Amino acid sequence: MARLRFQISMSLDGYVAGPDPSVEQPLGEGGEQLHEWVFGLAAWRQPHGREGGEVNASTPVVESTLENVGAALMGRNMFGGGPGPWGEEPWEGWWGDEPPFHMPVFVLTHHPREPLEKGETTFHFVTDGIESALAQAKDAADGRDVSLGGGAEVARQYLAAGLIDEMLLSVVPVLLGGGTRLFDGLGALDPKLEPVDAIHAPGVTHLRYRAAR
Amino acid sequence: MARLRFQISMSLDGYVAGPDPSVEQPLGEGGEQLHEWVFGLAAWRQPHGREGGEVNASTPVVESTLENVGAALMGRNMFGGGPGPWGEEPWEGWWGDEPPFHMPVFVLTHHPREPLEKGETTFHFVTDGIESALAQAKDAADGRDVSLGGGAEVARQYLAAGLIDEMLLSVVPVLLGGGTRLFDGLGALDPKLEPVDAIHAPGVTHLRYRAAR
Repeated sequence: MARLRFQISMSLDGYVAGPDPSVEQPLGEGGEQLHEWVFGLAAWRQPHGREGGEVNASTPVVESTLENVGAALMGRNMFGGGPGPWGEEPWEGWWGDEPPFHMPVFVLTHHPREPLEKGETTFHFVTDGIESALAQAKDAADGRDVSLGGGAEVARQYLAAGLIDEMLLSVVPVLLGGGTRLFDGLGALDPKLEPVDAIHAPGVTHLRYRAAR
Repeated sequence: MARLRFQISMSLDGYVAGPDPSVEQPLGEGGEQLHEWVFGLAAWRQPHGREGGEVNASTPVVESTLENVGAALMGRNMFGGGPGPWGEEPWEGWWGDEPPFHMPVFVLTHHPREPLEKGETTFHFVTDGIESALAQAKDAADGRDVSLGGGAEVARQYLAAGLIDEMLLSVVPVLLGGGTRLFDGLGALDPKLEPVDAIHAPGVTHLRYRAAR
């Protein structure tokens, strides 16, 4: 049974992006601190076309997020951000000509658009809601799992709908003091999330949860 | 060198108490879920005068919070809550005739009051601020550490002042959706907190941090 697996980095005070995000600073003020733990890892650099990097306790965690994944889901801001909606010349997103996904990616948006092929990644734009996007992604994943990386708004919708099977929360020991909180405006979780394990790594703590169905 | 050690239970969405706390429901709506992991432990029941209880991965964590502690600090709400200020008949707090502390406890308050002796615990009421309370507690601890358990408001003051040496955050996989957030209104931490370890236990994940001085 294909699972929906969600992973995100969060500050100790619960933010997944800092205040005042912009095209220049898509993660908001201070938001890049949430991802410093991953940028230095060989396991992250290699699929992003960069050399070098280190191996530490986060390495198997990052590798596991890529294992047995056949399709990805993301929100529109994670695809491209910017002032939108797309105009005459469609914005091609943050990801450049060789996005690191190498799989079909389903982008939740309100603006219909033809699929966009970039290297080995094809972005599909879904306008009829999270359940349709998940069904399309599962179909494309062909038995493998579907990965959801954010942003917060889309993740909240999937959490509220009880559709997330596994969650990896990488907690970074900084306070952003403002920005976008992952868990804002959610009631009690149904199904509940139960902790599976916790992994201490340099500059980050990885918490794994799974839905208690 | 005596350390200030802070421990608290927090929901995944960052709350240390639920909404609408009252004398009947001091932890707010749903707040008791934050402490279910501890109430069943023999390591918690025994010092609270209750029998039975289980031993699991949380046991050494709870035991460690009591080791080498010579005095405790708390906010006024954690001492007694209620509609305050104290009237003609001083409110004697939540803790009954045999509080579980068995050590001097320094209560931050705006209302001067004589010390209150209860069993082996003496509550001292400090009105001249967090630094004075910490100095008095360290003095009373006589070389051992000082323990801070909350509430959120006092903990935030100590965090903001950079006075916390160690923090144990017990993260419970529930969302409260409202209430008192531990990390509200704090800027960047100085000194920073660095993760020390993470312990996965039934129904809770314990994250340990220490100040990077």
